[in-house]
This record gives sequence, C-alpha cells and structure tokens, in this order.
Amino acid sequence: MKLVDVYRGNRVESSHFGHIAVVDSEGKLLYSVGNPKRATYARSSVKPLQAIPVVETGAADHYELSEQDLSLCCASHSGEAQHTDRVLAILGRAGIEDSSLKCGTHIPHAHDTYKNLIAAGKELTPLYNNCSGKHTGMLITAKHNHETLEDYYLLSHPVQQRILKTLSEVTDFPIEKIEMGVDGCGVPVHALPLERLAYGFARMARPDSLGEDRAKVANRITTAMMKYPEMVGGTGRFCTDFMKTAKGRLFGKAGAEGVYLIGDRETGLGIAIKIEDGNGRAVYPAVIETLRQLGFLEEEQINSLMHHYLPVLKNARQENIGELVPSFTLQTC
Amino acid sequence: MKLVDVYRGNRVESSHFGHIAVVDSEGKLLYSVGNPKRATYARSSVKPLQAIPVVETGAADHYELSEQDLSLCCASHSGEAQHTDRVLAILGRAGIEDSSLKCGTHIPHAHDTYKNLIAAGKELTPLYNNCSGKHTGMLITAKHNHETLEDYYLLSHPVQQRILKTLSEVTDFPIEKIEMGVDGCGVPVHALPLERLAYGFARMARPDSLGEDRAKVANRITTAMMKYPEMVGGTGRFCTDFMKTAKGRLFGKAGAEGVYLIGDRETGLGIAIKIEDGNGRAVYPAVIETLRQLGFLEEEQINSLMHHYLPVLKNARQENIGELVPSFTLQTC
Repeated sequence: MKLVDVYRGNRVESSHFGHIAVVDSEGKLLYSVGNPKRATYARSSVKPLQAIPVVETGAADHYELSEQDLSLCCASHSGEAQHTDRVLAILGRAGIEDSSLKCGTHIPHAHDTYKNLIAAGKELTPLYNNCSGKHTGMLITAKHNHETLEDYYLLSHPVQQRILKTLSEVTDFPIEKIEMGVDGCGVPVHALPLERLAYGFARMARPDSLGEDRAKVANRITTAMMKYPEMVGGTGRFCTDFMKTAKGRLFGKAGAEGVYLIGDRETGLGIAIKIEDGNGRAVYPAVIETLRQLGFLEEEQINSLMHHYLPVLKNARQENIGELVPSFTLQTC
Repeated sequence: MKLVDVYRGNRVESSHFGHIAVVDSEGKLLYSVGNPKRATYARSSVKPLQAIPVVETGAADHYELSEQDLSLCCASHSGEAQHTDRVLAILGRAGIEDSSLKCGTHIPHAHDTYKNLIAAGKELTPLYNNCSGKHTGMLITAKHNHETLEDYYLLSHPVQQRILKTLSEVTDFPIEKIEMGVDGCGVPVHALPLERLAYGFARMARPDSLGEDRAKVANRITTAMMKYPEMVGGTGRFCTDFMKTAKGRLFGKAGAEGVYLIGDRETGLGIAIKIEDGNGRAVYPAVIETLRQLGFLEEEQINSLMHHYLPVLKNARQENIGELVPSFTLQTC
C-alpha cells in the first residue's frame, strides 16, 4: 500500500509503499496498512529491547549507568561529543578499551564531527559508529558476566543469545521462527512479523504482562529514552525531536531500511512501520501521520514536528523544490 | 511491478518497484514492465539531449570543445580533478568565471576531493557540483549567443527554452504536455511518459529521422560519451563502467530518483527505467538485467559489471551481508 508521495513541483516524482501494524498490549491487531504480518528485519528499532539484558544481568547497576547512559544504549546516535564522550566514560568505568568496540566505522550523522576529524588529520573509529552505545551495553554485560569480549558480536556469544531470548519473550514469538541476518554494525539482526514487533513495543509501554521484575526494567529503559531523547538520536534527529515533543507519553526508535517502532504509555498500544523499499526519508512522515490519525498527537505537537511530517525538499541552491506527503488511511482490523 | 529485491542473509529485507519501457526508433513500444507511460521527471538522464543546443548553436565549435569536453557536458560527474580542471578550462576559453555557475554546492561523489578540500580549509563551490559540466554547456551557449549569463538557469531564459524545444522535438512530445519542476542543480526538469524518454534515446542511437544536421549532432554527442565515458561519471561509477564495457554500442545516462536511459546503436532501440521509490541503488541491477534479457550484453560483459549487476551489501565492518537481485521479466507489448 502506498504510504508517502514525493512531490517535485506540482507532481509526484516518486512514491514509497509500506506496511503498518497497530497492536494493543494483549497482542490484538487494531489497525493496519498493507501487510501487518510482513516478516521484517527490525534492525536498530529494537535497541530498547536489546537493552533489557544490560539491566537484567546487573551490568547497568554494577557500572553505575545513569539514565542518560541507558538511553545511549538504545541509540542510533549522531556521533556528537555528547555521545562519544559518554561511551568512553561508560567503557572507562568498566575498564574496557574503546578498541574493543566491533561495530566498524562509518561517517557519522553529525557532519561537524567528521569535518573536525579530517581537519585534524584523524581517522574515524568505531566510537563514532551510531551503534557504539548499543555495543557498549553489550560489552559491559559480557564483562560483568565474565564472558569473552572479543567475540561479543557473534550469534553464538551469550550476549547475543540473551538478546535473542529476550526478543522472543517480549514479542511472544518463537525463537526458531525468528530469521537472522547480520546488521550494519556486525551483530545479528532479527526478522519478525511486523505485528509482533508492534506487540513488543506495546508491552514495553504497558509491561504488566512481562512480570514484575521485567516490567520495572522495561519502564526504566523507556523512561530513560523519553527523559534523555538527545541520547537516542542527536541534534535535530527525528527520534530526539519526536520524544521531546511527546514527552513522557510516546517513545520511538528508528531502524535502518525504513523501520520505525513506537510505544504509547497512555493507551498501551504499539506501532510498527516498514517502508517496503527501505528508504528512511518516508518513515518519519508515516510515523506522524499514523499518530495523527490515531489522535495521539495534538495539532500543536504536529506543528512543532512539521519539518519531519511534511519535509521540504531543497536543491543544491537551497531552493524549496518539493515535499513529502503521506497518502494512506489506517484500516480498522 | 517489482524490479529488484534487496537480500539480507537469506531473506528479502526490502524491494524496489518500478517501470521499464523499450521502444524502437520509430516510437513503437516493444517491451515493458509496470507502466511504460508513467510520467517521469527525466532529471539528469536527458543531459545528452540537453547538450544538443550546445552544438547546434555553434558554441561547441566556437569554444573548441573536444570530444572529452562534450562528454563532460552530458555528465553527472564525481568531482574528480579530471572533471573540475576541464570545466575550468572550458569556462576559461569562453572568458567566463566559475562563479557564474549557478548549480549550487553538494558533497561530491569523489570523497577524496571533499576530504582534501576540508583538510586544506577550503569550501565547496559549484565547480564540484556533479552538474557543473552541463551548466558550463549552458553558460558557453548563452555567451556565444550574446544572452545574459546571470539568469541562464531560469525557464524563461533562451538557454532553457532551446532545451525544452529540443526535448519536445527529439521525443516527439508536445511542449505544452511536458510538466516542469526544478532540478537539484536549479535548472528546469521535464516530466514525460517513460516511453517518450525511451524514444528520445532510440532516436539518439539511430538519428536518421532527426534530419541530417541534427543526426550529425546526435552522433557527435553519443560518440563523445562512449569514447570518453570517464567524463560522464567518474572512477568506478556505473555510467562510466557500463559504457567502457559496451564500448561503441550502448550509451546510457543516470538521473536522480532512480531514472536511467539507454540507447543502442546496433538495434536503434531506446530503454527508459524508473524506480518508483526513487532509489538509485536499484536502477543499475535493473539496467543490466534488462540488457541481459534483450541479449544486448554478452556473458563476459555482464561478468565484468557483476558488482553493479548483483551488488554486494557490506556493513561497517566490511563484511558481505546481502545483495541486490533483479526479479522481473520484460513483457512483450
């Protein structure tokens, strides 16, 4: 189903198709667009679930993770100093060198960070990888459990096995049905039906059914994300701006290839979105349009997110030459 | 219609839909996928047609454009020294400052160019814009015709009016039906049915019906592109590698938002491809698969283009984690 049109001038230049699932905290599919059962690699969108073992193993308390630190463990961050300094501080408290990060290198979203590195004649390191917070969570968990550090990214490692088990439990989807691949940062990725991912976030939002202990962990993680959203993304990033705007009610996390997961503390609903072609530019308009149709965002909140909702396309001369416009209607299931 | 699947591990993570039109030099639609009449902004794919007035006005000869220079007028180049030095040389012969280029700035594809600029404390200029060759063609045409230089990028300027008329004539599509927008580099872009764009390239490949004079111009342009394909793109770029491989037979040009046009001198066929979601990563596999199905590329040629045909996806650790695979069959019309 078509989700978002890309206009250039008065006509549509390109269109993005996709799928949406809206699920309650009992797992019931309430609304959908396209195929809500589409098996979808969650990518970074499930980082909040991947952070559960960091807390449950005791690593978070042992290494004195603040709420900012925990939020950073759920991040696809921009590589700003506020992120990289904090990664170094956490690793430092655990006595782990940043050379232990096995997430690889890419040009960070914070372009000034990159320019400053080049101007100083320095090289990119995994510290600047947007996943270095998540990898730090994995490393300190391994260290706390006296597990090997050098192969923490492999599926066979207890760190990844705990994550897989946790994902299966929270989404109530059998481990053997979770299909696996390798993520951009080298760790396993998990493909589940979109509605199971939505259910996972619904339970993170209203975690009673997870049991008392895990419910506390879930609340601790999502509270940290909503309280310190600048850690989850960075200056001007969607996850950050969105959680600032929806403060205390909605939490959300983007994943590569056009994935987004949202949890709503007020209704206990979870939402999962996948852009079929994987283009992230279409996912933020689709997120806000979904929340608008559900009535989860006030007009004023939508206005403050307008540059993410109906993003203007600019050319190399910085002229406005088009915009993205959502074009779907949620169907009641 | 689905054109290309993106695999991560053993399963499809994302899919790209799109449209293909294969047209002969008499304008007959021979094969198609999806909607061959889809109105499509041609973007940079019609640069070879936009170069026609550079030659027809006499500007190319007056300013002694070599075949390399003419090829560069059809380019979306990488911003390598071989491109920017040549742009400066052409402008220099015409007595035009490079500050007259109104294409705006963007980070060039040749990342070393960008890193060297930053390391030297310099700023990006329009010279490094991938369209600076096309804009140079526009500027020298205006200069040769004693037209104003400062507004050459506006639709009302004779330079853009000549281009619009030429496009209409070569594609045999009425000017008043061509929808217009503004391109990434600030000049007008033209939306035409995909099969009309394919027809335009079919006539560039077998230009008899364009009349003797224009046929010579068309041959001169496509010969320049095929003889010096490194000017059209740059080191490792698809247009460059493709025309090197198909030397002397096929010419092709990419456009932003997933557009590609090809002309075949041997059969006189033209091919137009549009990825519906605008993602350029899917267009090169679709191009080679189309040519494979048509029998226009030998197995050996396909093998030499394998990294464009079935591109391997790598993660930030430089591990192979997936690949793009075409999934369509041309339908006889």
